[in-house]
Amino acid sequence: MVGHRSQVAKDLFAGIQPKLREVFQTQSRVFLTSSSGTGLWEGMLRSCTSGRLLLLTCGAFGERWAEVAQSNGIPFDQASVSWGSPNSPEQLEKALAKRRYAALALVHNETSTGILNPLKEIADVARVFDPEMLILVDAVSSAGGVPIATQDWGLDVVVTSSQKCFALPPGLAFSAVSDRAIDHALKVTHRGWYFDAVRLDKALSKNGTPATPAISLLYALDKQLDRILEEGLTNRYIRHADLAQRAQSWAVEHMDLYAQEGYRSPTVTCIRNTRNLDLTALNDHLSLSGMTIASGYGPLKDQTFRIGHMGELRVEDLEILFREIEAFMEM
Amino acid sequence: MVGHRSQVAKDLFAGIQPKLREVFQTQSRVFLTSSSGTGLWEGMLRSCTSGRLLLLTCGAFGERWAEVAQSNGIPFDQASVSWGSPNSPEQLEKALAKRRYAALALVHNETSTGILNPLKEIADVARVFDPEMLILVDAVSSAGGVPIATQDWGLDVVVTSSQKCFALPPGLAFSAVSDRAIDHALKVTHRGWYFDAVRLDKALSKNGTPATPAISLLYALDKQLDRILEEGLTNRYIRHADLAQRAQSWAVEHMDLYAQEGYRSPTVTCIRNTRNLDLTALNDHLSLSGMTIASGYGPLKDQTFRIGHMGELRVEDLEILFREIEAFMEM
Repeated sequence: MVGHRSQVAKDLFAGIQPKLREVFQTQSRVFLTSSSGTGLWEGMLRSCTSGRLLLLTCGAFGERWAEVAQSNGIPFDQASVSWGSPNSPEQLEKALAKRRYAALALVHNETSTGILNPLKEIADVARVFDPEMLILVDAVSSAGGVPIATQDWGLDVVVTSSQKCFALPPGLAFSAVSDRAIDHALKVTHRGWYFDAVRLDKALSKNGTPATPAISLLYALDKQLDRILEEGLTNRYIRHADLAQRAQSWAVEHMDLYAQEGYRSPTVTCIRNTRNLDLTALNDHLSLSGMTIASGYGPLKDQTFRIGHMGELRVEDLEILFREIEAFMEM
Repeated sequence: MVGHRSQVAKDLFAGIQPKLREVFQTQSRVFLTSSSGTGLWEGMLRSCTSGRLLLLTCGAFGERWAEVAQSNGIPFDQASVSWGSPNSPEQLEKALAKRRYAALALVHNETSTGILNPLKEIADVARVFDPEMLILVDAVSSAGGVPIATQDWGLDVVVTSSQKCFALPPGLAFSAVSDRAIDHALKVTHRGWYFDAVRLDKALSKNGTPATPAISLLYALDKQLDRILEEGLTNRYIRHADLAQRAQSWAVEHMDLYAQEGYRSPTVTCIRNTRNLDLTALNDHLSLSGMTIASGYGPLKDQTFRIGHMGELRVEDLEILFREIEAFMEM
C-alpha cells in the first residue's frame, strides 16, 4: 500500500484522469470518490444545486433521488411518468414552461424498469429553455456502455459507479463535472465536505482527493480504463446494443418485455414474468452455474425479473444463461 | 464478485458485525461505509447533531472538523488549546458551565501533533454535566490500537477508518453508534442520505448498507478482524504502547518530542526536527528500503516529522527504520 499523499499515488491519480475524461467525453474534469454512485450523486445534487431542482422520474432510482433531495433540504418539483415509460422532451417542455429551475436531474438508464431515457433530446430542450440551468445525469448503469457525449450534449454532471459498465469491484464513483456546475456550486452555502464539488475540484487540480481514497481499487481502475479504451468506446457501445438485442429477442420469444418499445435499455432487460416463474428457485438453479438474475425492483418484485448485460459480458455468456433458464422452465 | 443483495454478501456482512462490536467494545451497533473516515465522521456529525455542537480541538484534524461543521451549517463553538497540548476535562468543564450543547465532538488521537487526549476523563465530565449530550469521537488513528471502552465510557459515536490501526487498505470506515445517538438523529430534519445514521441503522438490521458497499474490501476486513481478535485487544494495546515508548526514547536521544509529556500518542510520534533534516531527502533515502515517514502536518511541515507506528508494525520494524534514519544523519 502506498500513502495517498505520496508521489506514486499522485502519479496514479494523474494517469487515470485523462482516461476518465475520454470515457466521459469531456475536457473539463471527472471527480473520483471512494463511495457508491449514490453517495457521489447525492454530493453533486447537494453541492451544485443553487436553487430549485426539477426531477424527472420514471422508476425506483428516480424515486430514490427524490428522497435524496428531500433529505438534503433541496427544494424540488418532481415530474414522473408511469413505470415502463420514458421521460420525454415534451414532458420537460411542459414543466419548464411553468417555472425556472436552477437544475434539472434525471436518470439516464432506469435500472428498475429497463428504460433508457432519450437523454440528448431532453438535454436539447433544457438548453434551449435555459442556457444556465444545470443538467445532472445519473448514468450509473449506462456510462461506459451507452453513448454519452457529456460535453457536446451540454451535460453538467454525469455520475456513475465502478461496478456497472466499468466492470470493476464496487467502491468507487465517478462524475464528469462542467465549469458551469462549479460556478453554481460556489453560490451554494452548505455544500458539505466529503462530496463537495468545490473541494473535490481543488484536490483534483493537485492530483488527489480531499480525503484518503481506496487506493487498491484505483490500481484496478487504471488497468480497466486501458482495457475499455483498447476495445474502443464505439465497439463497446455496439457490443452492449448487441447484448440487449439478443436479450430482448429471447424475452419476446419466451415471455414479454416490460419497457416501452423504442426506449429499451442496452444494459439491462426487464422481463415480464408471464410464466410466473419462481424467481428464487430460478436463481438457485442458476447459481449452480455461477450465474444470477435480478428479481424485479420494489413493487415489481415478482411480476418482472431483470437481466443485466453490461461490462465485459459477451453474447456467448448470455446464450449460456438462456440455456439454463430454458432448462429450468422445462423442469 | 457477489451481488450486494445476495445471501453471500449478507452472510459476510452479518459475520463482520459481532467482530466489529468486540473491537469497539459495544453491544449496540457499528456502521460500516465505503468511504474514508472523514466521510463517515461528517455523516455522523451531520445526522446526529440535533442542536448546538461543542468542538474541542488541539490540532489540524480538530480544525478540519470545524470546517466540516461549518460546511454543513451545524451551529458550533470551538474550544482549542495550543498545538502540542491536549484537550482537558477542565477546559470542558469551563465550556459546559457557560451553556448547554446537543453534542460534544473531539479527536481522540490528534495525528498532526501526536497527542492522545484523555478521552475517558473528558467523557466523565461530559456525562456528569449532561446525561443527554452526545459524545462524538474521532478515533481514526486510535481505534484498534489504544483502549476505547465505547459503551463503558458512554461514548455515542466512535469513528475510524480501515487504513490506520486496522492495517487494511483504505476505502472503508466504521462507526460505533449508541441508541442515544439514533434518538438524537430522529430529531434532525436534513440528515442526508448516504451517511444518514437512521438509514444506516435500518440497513444494518437487514445485514446490509443503504447503497452498494466495497465488497472486495469487506472480505479483507473479515479476515483482518479475525487476526486482530486472535492477537487479543489487550496484547494489541500493549504492542502499540511498546512501539510508542521505543519511538519516544529514540526521538529524545536524537532530537526532541513535540507533544506534551503524559499525553503522547501510542500510534504516532511527532518529532521536533531540531537537526533541520531535509525531510524530502530523508524520505528519498528511506524509500530505497521501502519505508517512509510523514513530514509535519500543515504549519508544522518542516519543524516536525512524524512516525506512524500502528497496525501490524513490530518494534523490530522500528529498529530498521531508526537504523536508516541514523545512517542518513551521518551521511
